[in-house]
Amino acid sequence: MPSISPSLSAAMNHAATSVTETMQRILPKSDFPEQKLFDAMRYSVLAGGKRLRPFLVMNTAEIYGVDEDCALRAAAAIECLHCYSLVHDDLPAMDNADLRRGQPTTHIKYDEATAVLAGDALLTIAFEILADSRTHEDPNVRCALVSSLARASGANGMIGGQMLDLIAETTQFDIGAITRLQRMKTGELIACSTEMGGILGKAPAAHLSALRAYAHDLGLAFQIIDDLLDAEGTEAETGKSVGRDADAGKATFVTVLGHDRARQQAKLLSEQAIQHLSLFDGRAKNLEDVARFVVDRKA
Amino acid sequence: MPSISPSLSAAMNHAATSVTETMQRILPKSDFPEQKLFDAMRYSVLAGGKRLRPFLVMNTAEIYGVDEDCALRAAAAIECLHCYSLVHDDLPAMDNADLRRGQPTTHIKYDEATAVLAGDALLTIAFEILADSRTHEDPNVRCALVSSLARASGANGMIGGQMLDLIAETTQFDIGAITRLQRMKTGELIACSTEMGGILGKAPAAHLSALRAYAHDLGLAFQIIDDLLDAEGTEAETGKSVGRDADAGKATFVTVLGHDRARQQAKLLSEQAIQHLSLFDGRAKNLEDVARFVVDRKA
Repeated sequence: MPSISPSLSAAMNHAATSVTETMQRILPKSDFPEQKLFDAMRYSVLAGGKRLRPFLVMNTAEIYGVDEDCALRAAAAIECLHCYSLVHDDLPAMDNADLRRGQPTTHIKYDEATAVLAGDALLTIAFEILADSRTHEDPNVRCALVSSLARASGANGMIGGQMLDLIAETTQFDIGAITRLQRMKTGELIACSTEMGGILGKAPAAHLSALRAYAHDLGLAFQIIDDLLDAEGTEAETGKSVGRDADAGKATFVTVLGHDRARQQAKLLSEQAIQHLSLFDGRAKNLEDVARFVVDRKA
Repeated sequence: MPSISPSLSAAMNHAATSVTETMQRILPKSDFPEQKLFDAMRYSVLAGGKRLRPFLVMNTAEIYGVDEDCALRAAAAIECLHCYSLVHDDLPAMDNADLRRGQPTTHIKYDEATAVLAGDALLTIAFEILADSRTHEDPNVRCALVSSLARASGANGMIGGQMLDLIAETTQFDIGAITRLQRMKTGELIACSTEMGGILGKAPAAHLSALRAYAHDLGLAFQIIDDLLDAEGTEAETGKSVGRDADAGKATFVTVLGHDRARQQAKLLSEQAIQHLSLFDGRAKNLEDVARFVVDRKA
């Protein structure tokens, strides 16, 4: 059984390529002395990655017939935000990671101060992109996008999850606490991706709930597989430092559940994610397929 | 001649007290394990400070009869953003400052990772506050506020200025380069404060231009006095580490112009700032008074 269908593969490649082009176009350039900041911003977002969040924004927006240029701007915003979180997360005071997507992390390639500032600037530009009338003609939609992204990525979402992740290095978390941590750290932004697609399409509340529920299950499944790859994978396969969680003595889905149960749990979550999409009657095929893909991926 | 008029003093105290109360109410609390993040966010904004930016938002909005609760929310947003920039600016990799407003800086009080995250969360919540319908009923106004703040604080504004400030430690900047640096690093956010007041009041474009011009002159005057206080003041008077610029061999208005010409330049800028307000026919009395105050201040 192939791990990825040709249509999903094409949709993922299209999302990755077009969001990268969009960021290339939107991110500012400079010939001024502060050029290094702009270089570091581009370096931090243009190195690649799966572009899962842009894929989710675009393929959710497509269900509602949203103009692709609008969806791409929202996708670029959330990817800038995701990349800022990686830059700050990799800092010496945080995860102290030297390698990301097979490349030196931003503070290694440039320096720590530039990495802090490039992260700050990527976070800031995400909101500038969303508030721009080119993202959607209706200002209510643009405000809803800003609110959704700010909530998902703020102290009650992603940043709170990162704080918990630091605490997990010195506190033994049980499975409930790990689930909450991951729901905040990665789940909220993944849920925001589908929510933003729905907001762009002025989706009814019932759709937004289903899209969020789908994405939260998808996000947890994604994270469990990440933990498995961290525990089982090699640096060459995953393109990033591995074994860091085990080295730090940190509880993960894998250390608490064990490998087999963790993989089983990821599959269950993937199936449950797909069930949340039943109200779309097959019009969310790419979202269904990606839920199957994330539990089969090798990197 | 008294350095501050009673009416200005009352207006500044009112802005400082009410924006602090507003931030106290808006900033999230938590009993969860990540509570330290929320504590660090509060610590970073509630320690005090002149609250110049909130004062400018509120006293500009007042010209247009904007509801004070709306102006206070916008003022709280820009103050959260200003405070995040101080937290990140004080980090070991940046200015490495131990003292701010007479208190330990956030990374000294907590730790470096928490300071990075608290800064990120304050930046994020600033946009969440602005996009909220309680800030203004018109979504076009809310989008304009988000755009204004993002532009002023992003790579082409404050963050670019901070990058230049780091470069200034190893490159000898001339007066033009220093002016551009300060215009970006502090001027843009100060200009954004008056612009936001105008946006809330749906001010005509000519007003917004005048308000921005006023604030840019005010901001430069403010910065020149800051440099003078850094060169002449004591820690006890200013409540923060002093002499850091001279120690770092960094060119400032004071090192390039000398003390007397720097003070003279600040006074000229203050007078010029007031002239930009002439189209308000005396209805911007507090903005005029604060321009006189900033060049007389001792801390």
